[in-house]
Amino acid sequence: MNPKIIAFDADDTLWHNEPYFDEAQDKFCELFSGYASKQELLRLILNHQITNLPLYGFGIKAFTLSMIESALELTNHNISGQNIEKVLHIGKELLQKPVELLPDVIAVLEELKGTHKLIVATKGDLKDQHRKLHESGIGAYFHHIEVMSDKTELDYEKMLVRLDCQAADFLMIGNSLKSDVLPVLNIGGHAVHIPYHTTWEYEQIDFEIEHENFRALEKITDVLPLLQ
Amino acid sequence: MNPKIIAFDADDTLWHNEPYFDEAQDKFCELFSGYASKQELLRLILNHQITNLPLYGFGIKAFTLSMIESALELTNHNISGQNIEKVLHIGKELLQKPVELLPDVIAVLEELKGTHKLIVATKGDLKDQHRKLHESGIGAYFHHIEVMSDKTELDYEKMLVRLDCQAADFLMIGNSLKSDVLPVLNIGGHAVHIPYHTTWEYEQIDFEIEHENFRALEKITDVLPLLQ
Repeated sequence: MNPKIIAFDADDTLWHNEPYFDEAQDKFCELFSGYASKQELLRLILNHQITNLPLYGFGIKAFTLSMIESALELTNHNISGQNIEKVLHIGKELLQKPVELLPDVIAVLEELKGTHKLIVATKGDLKDQHRKLHESGIGAYFHHIEVMSDKTELDYEKMLVRLDCQAADFLMIGNSLKSDVLPVLNIGGHAVHIPYHTTWEYEQIDFEIEHENFRALEKITDVLPLLQ
Repeated sequence: MNPKIIAFDADDTLWHNEPYFDEAQDKFCELFSGYASKQELLRLILNHQITNLPLYGFGIKAFTLSMIESALELTNHNISGQNIEKVLHIGKELLQKPVELLPDVIAVLEELKGTHKLIVATKGDLKDQHRKLHESGIGAYFHHIEVMSDKTELDYEKMLVRLDCQAADFLMIGNSLKSDVLPVLNIGGHAVHIPYHTTWEYEQIDFEIEHENFRALEKITDVLPLLQ
C-alpha cells in the first residue's frame, strides 16, 4: 500500500468520543426515566436523529435538537422549561468535553508525517471538530481538516477532486465500516478499519467486508507496517 | 487586480438569506409578543447568539438553540411544550427555504469561470450550505465550497495555505465588511464589498474602510470591469 494522502477519521479514531455521547444519553434517560425504559428512550432519540439527518446533519447541535424533540414527544408536550434547559445543558456539556487522544496516535502521526500528506476527514459540527483538533494539540500534523456533511461515496469523490488525488492513492483510516470503509472502497480507494470499543448504532453494519484494498486492524500502530 | 482565486461569500452575496432570518425572528417575536417589545426580543436573541458563538458557531441550528434559550429566559421557564415545538419548527422552516439567486450572479460566474479559480467561502451550517449550493444550481462553477467555522484572519490564512494561494493573489467578494473584507485586507488579500439591503446586526461595523486593495461596489456585475 503506497497512498499519497492518508485521511484519519477523528471521533473514536484519533480521540475518544462515543463514550461522551453515551454519557449524555444516560443523563437524558435519567431525566425522563419515569416515561419509558432506557432502551425505548435511546430508540426514540435515534429515530429523531435519523429523521432529522437530511435537515440537521451530524454533530452535537443536531443531537441536542433531536433530544429536545424526543423529550417533547415523550411527554406529550407536557414538559417543564427546567427540563428543556437541562437538555440544552447536556448538549453544551458535550461541546466542552476534554479531548483525549487514543493511545499511540501521536507516535503514528510522527512516523508518517515525513512521508505522507495527512488529513483529518470527519463528520460532525464544524466548530466543534475544529475546537477538538485545536485542543488535541495534533493539528500541526495535518495538511487540513475536512469536516464533511456526510461520508457518502459522492462526498469522498468531491473531496478527492479538491485534494487533486486519485482514489487509488488515497487511504482512509477509521472506526466506522459504514462511513470510513465502504464508501472509500466503492470509489476505488484504500481503507483501514480500527474498531473502537463502542459504535453508534447508526454506524453499525451487519455483514463482513472482504476487499483487496481493505485491512481490518486492531490498533492504530498496526498501520505502520502496511505503509513501509 | 489580477487574482488567481476569487472567493464569493454565499448568504446575501450569491443568494438571499437575511430576509429569511428576519422572517423567522418575526415569527418568534409574534409568538412571545406578550412578554416584551419586538426590539427587546430581537436583542435577547442576539445576546444569546453572541454568547453561544464560541460553543455553537454560526448557522441555523445555533440560531434555533439560541431562540429556545431566549424563550426559556423570557418566560422564566414557564413555557409550554407547544411553544418550544413552534420554535423548533421556525428553525426547520429556515432549513428548507428555497434558494433564490441574486440578480446577475450566473452571468458573472459565467464570465469568470474560464479565467479564474472560483470558490465559495461561507459561514453557517455545513449541511445547510451544501444543500443551498446544490439547490442553487451553480455548484459546477466552483472549484469547491469552503464552509468556515468563522471568518477571522486566521481562518482565511488557513484556507489560503490549503488552497496553496498567496494572499496577494486572493480576492474575496461579499456583503459583510466585518467578515468578508476586513480580515482579508489585514492579511494582504483583496476584497470587494457588495452591500445587501439588510445586514445582520452582528456583522455591522461603524467605520469607513479605505485601502488600496479594497473596492466598494454597488452590484455584483461591477466586479467584471475590475478583473479585465
